[in-house]
Amino acid sequence: MPVLRMSTLFLRTLREDPADAEVPSHKLLVRGGFVRRIAPGIFSWLPLGYIVYRNIERIVREEMDNAGFQEVHFPALLPREPFEATDRWNEYGPTLFRLQDRKKVDYLLGPTHEEMFTLMVKGEYSSYKDLPVSLYQIQTKYRDEARPRAGILRGREFVMKDSYSFDINDEGLAQSYERHRQAYIATFKRLGLEFVIVSATSGAMGGSASEEFLAPCEVGEDTYVQCSSCGLAANVEAIVTPAPAEQDASGIGAAHVEATPGMSAISALVDFSNQNFGSNWSAADTLKCVVVMLTHIDGSQTPLVVGLPGDRELDIKRLETSVHPATVRPFEDEDFAKTPALVKGYIGPQVLGEESASGIRFVVDPRIVTGSRWIAGANQSDHHIYDLVAGRDFNWDALVDAAEILEGDECANCGSPLSIARGIEIGHIFQLGRKYAEALDLKVLDENGKLVTVTMGSYGIGVSRAVAAIAEQSHDDKGMIWPREIAPADVHILATGKDEEVFAKADEIATELESLGVRILFDDRKGVSPGVKFNDSELLGVPTIVVVGKGLADGVVEIRDRATGAQENVPVGQAVSHIHRLATA
Amino acid sequence: MPVLRMSTLFLRTLREDPADAEVPSHKLLVRGGFVRRIAPGIFSWLPLGYIVYRNIERIVREEMDNAGFQEVHFPALLPREPFEATDRWNEYGPTLFRLQDRKKVDYLLGPTHEEMFTLMVKGEYSSYKDLPVSLYQIQTKYRDEARPRAGILRGREFVMKDSYSFDINDEGLAQSYERHRQAYIATFKRLGLEFVIVSATSGAMGGSASEEFLAPCEVGEDTYVQCSSCGLAANVEAIVTPAPAEQDASGIGAAHVEATPGMSAISALVDFSNQNFGSNWSAADTLKCVVVMLTHIDGSQTPLVVGLPGDRELDIKRLETSVHPATVRPFEDEDFAKTPALVKGYIGPQVLGEESASGIRFVVDPRIVTGSRWIAGANQSDHHIYDLVAGRDFNWDALVDAAEILEGDECANCGSPLSIARGIEIGHIFQLGRKYAEALDLKVLDENGKLVTVTMGSYGIGVSRAVAAIAEQSHDDKGMIWPREIAPADVHILATGKDEEVFAKADEIATELESLGVRILFDDRKGVSPGVKFNDSELLGVPTIVVVGKGLADGVVEIRDRATGAQENVPVGQAVSHIHRLATA
Repeated sequence: MPVLRMSTLFLRTLREDPADAEVPSHKLLVRGGFVRRIAPGIFSWLPLGYIVYRNIERIVREEMDNAGFQEVHFPALLPREPFEATDRWNEYGPTLFRLQDRKKVDYLLGPTHEEMFTLMVKGEYSSYKDLPVSLYQIQTKYRDEARPRAGILRGREFVMKDSYSFDINDEGLAQSYERHRQAYIATFKRLGLEFVIVSATSGAMGGSASEEFLAPCEVGEDTYVQCSSCGLAANVEAIVTPAPAEQDASGIGAAHVEATPGMSAISALVDFSNQNFGSNWSAADTLKCVVVMLTHIDGSQTPLVVGLPGDRELDIKRLETSVHPATVRPFEDEDFAKTPALVKGYIGPQVLGEESASGIRFVVDPRIVTGSRWIAGANQSDHHIYDLVAGRDFNWDALVDAAEILEGDECANCGSPLSIARGIEIGHIFQLGRKYAEALDLKVLDENGKLVTVTMGSYGIGVSRAVAAIAEQSHDDKGMIWPREIAPADVHILATGKDEEVFAKADEIATELESLGVRILFDDRKGVSPGVKFNDSELLGVPTIVVVGKGLADGVVEIRDRATGAQENVPVGQAVSHIHRLATA
Repeated sequence: MPVLRMSTLFLRTLREDPADAEVPSHKLLVRGGFVRRIAPGIFSWLPLGYIVYRNIERIVREEMDNAGFQEVHFPALLPREPFEATDRWNEYGPTLFRLQDRKKVDYLLGPTHEEMFTLMVKGEYSSYKDLPVSLYQIQTKYRDEARPRAGILRGREFVMKDSYSFDINDEGLAQSYERHRQAYIATFKRLGLEFVIVSATSGAMGGSASEEFLAPCEVGEDTYVQCSSCGLAANVEAIVTPAPAEQDASGIGAAHVEATPGMSAISALVDFSNQNFGSNWSAADTLKCVVVMLTHIDGSQTPLVVGLPGDRELDIKRLETSVHPATVRPFEDEDFAKTPALVKGYIGPQVLGEESASGIRFVVDPRIVTGSRWIAGANQSDHHIYDLVAGRDFNWDALVDAAEILEGDECANCGSPLSIARGIEIGHIFQLGRKYAEALDLKVLDENGKLVTVTMGSYGIGVSRAVAAIAEQSHDDKGMIWPREIAPADVHILATGKDEEVFAKADEIATELESLGVRILFDDRKGVSPGVKFNDSELLGVPTIVVVGKGLADGVVEIRDRATGAQENVPVGQAVSHIHRLATA
């Protein structure tokens, strides 16, 4: 790589955080001149950012090649038909970018390529002898996210490495899955990312059907639980809440409606209940009925009521997992106006259920077991109903696991308290099975000459997102701290002051190091103060910073470690060999 | 690169040419398992094809970096506004892929990125001191071609390297243009492409405002002329036809209509005229009026009549250059039915022109000079008009340079006969000037603190198209003959027969060579006949083919040169060093 000279480098750093940036990685990637926003969720890369991106892409490619996966490349502009065959043309809803060509033929911008890989293998292979095979591509994907956010962390155009494995049977798939799992571990380690592997499907423990690689990070969009006792780690969307045992309600009297004026808030209701109707009521004894509006893929909308113990909030992402491909939005005042059966603040289960007069679907948390006793809304303002017994006084259409998981909740596996954290999804591995092969008729002849359906896995790494994930994990309040293999350069040399000799010596060091294969960013700008250069070097985050300046009069250059802040003076005659050692350590 | 083993390589070669392939590169790239068609003009890359593609991409990138151009990267999904500002949102017509996001906001898939680069520089730079700068990207482009053809030669999704230069004044632009020109020469030489540089704009000689790099090739879509005498080389679309001197028509009598029954074809008309109305008429004396339909960017359609000497055909591509952004289509029978002024086969200029009763625009070839005498259609069936004098008996709205150029036409520069050939456009360099900077307000402060508009150049290389261009130039009837730096491997080793020792020795040679950095394709397939392996090796086109087979009993391996067909036997003990020498020569 030629020496990157800042006097001509297409780079302008910013002193101020961009107004629209919410998270540290976004702020720093914009301030450091790595990326620029073009439209919501759509970004361009400036030279230093693209070097970082390409370093990551190279590492991902090398690790895939090392694992024996073969690289192919698909277009982003794809015909409708294969996605029609798997129904994803509809299921993707508004997240799919759709368009027509000049002949009014339907196309889409690929959000992922299961269909295309399936058809590619179908086109070339026909025998069990051809399998297993694992193919991958590093390619631009499109998803019209409802809420693009956090810069390149969740974009609408982004680069993914997507792999697909093809096997003749389940054992083969399990092996292909494990090979990808190991390749992903190697890749993320090399990228310098801290990560956890969490179950992504219900069935949690031992279930290897789907796992996510999360980079722990406060601004991550995924919440996951970990059990320090048994080692369980799972996305909250994959957590199964153990249902308590059914209760004997034979001693509980008939339900009774009571006036509870103004008590639509649960904490007030609990206090009021303890004062007026016996004691020891807690929020967990109230049955909270949360109503949301589902939008189905055909565009129709239906209300859904979720019954939860009153001490839990509804987790919308968990609910969305349950109702997919429908999406969830809040129930607005105008929706209430059109649904007189639902009395805002006082909804109770007596009027709910698909079999009821209202016909409104009613699903409940697993904790609402037969025989359990509740305080619930009485479906009239300022009234609640007490001693309402599940299974006796009301029923439900289905169970749903959509209550928020709380720190300290019991591990379903071992009963120990769970801890909760957030992370960025950087990888996802998934045993797809035969869904796509069946839909697109990918069959091969087995040993007995019989046609059998191929079983598949799909595996993804967010390549452009990894830039942001690394930025989130590797920065301080001054700027980026890039891991060396990812960094835009190994060494950032600053020539400070006005002395021509200083600039000449810095140039000499830069050129010598470059000839040794060290990647150099050289701040050779004239008329820029040392303070600005120091600040820029901290913002840009190259791991080793070399200051050639005043010290040269004393025969030394200063070497700073960006990560630790450690500084040392090195005799100028030893500078090249010393820096070379640091850069190749 | 790990050894590519054909026993597991995702590759199936085809014996037959694909039914839809028109040109050799398309046939061979499909038969050799390099690419597969997904939709019209949309292709995917299989492993060997993608290696070839990436080799080309790498060379292009290295040459751009060597020239000091800086790499950035834009999205393909772009907002409408910048393209509205330059009017290209409309001008591109149906060639632009347009789409809307979930909020009904307009987007497009970038056909080229002038607007975005202009805005990027505007966002970062503000002073003459920042200039010049040249930026490039290697990125996927989208054009909804009316006639995608010839496989990846003219696709609708394709990869381009597009560069843009930014300068403060015309001298700077000329220098930036020259730097790109030199970088392109270096790039195409390294790619092993034979190429010519032709003028692409009228003004031909010395005009450096725009030049194309064409790879000479029969199936190329571009026609160009060369003058072996003065060195002129130009795309036919850029050729200016010298107008002959005006003629003195004072001795020519009045025009007279004659019955010419059934003589709508020019050759018949000429014979008939020589028999009946004097002699020495030739096709060049007839005035051919060709009518076409123009489609304007607002969708409206208007007829256009082009007057040409009868010995020339209309060149639709040249005409399209003149009428851009309107497009040209043939005039159909139903169009004639709606336009009674135009009598098919007997159209004459007397009823034409925007000022005439018909109002039909009439443009003529420069050879139709004032005072020249013609036979033309008389605007009634089976009749022509004789002694029709240009400027006396008819007029025209404008001149147009849209007649086909013929082998042997006079060079406008030196008068020598021109030769004509066809080529594939592999590069285009263009002095854009201030069009985009003005439309998007890209100004910087000059030395005097005055705002001045920046001047730009744009420069493109068809990266994916180069794969096809190289394939067109480098093949024989057996298959591909890849230049070494482009080839999917340096050496193709075939293990033939059934002898385990042969396979073991071939594997040993492959592994040793790989450890020396030689890229190896190894045909280690069991149960595949030597004939099939030979055929595949010729089809795949790796430059050096090594056969480890029967000869091993005599202590030799056979080495074949794919390009020359030369064969030699080499003692097995010297095989590795000998092949290594060939591969790194």
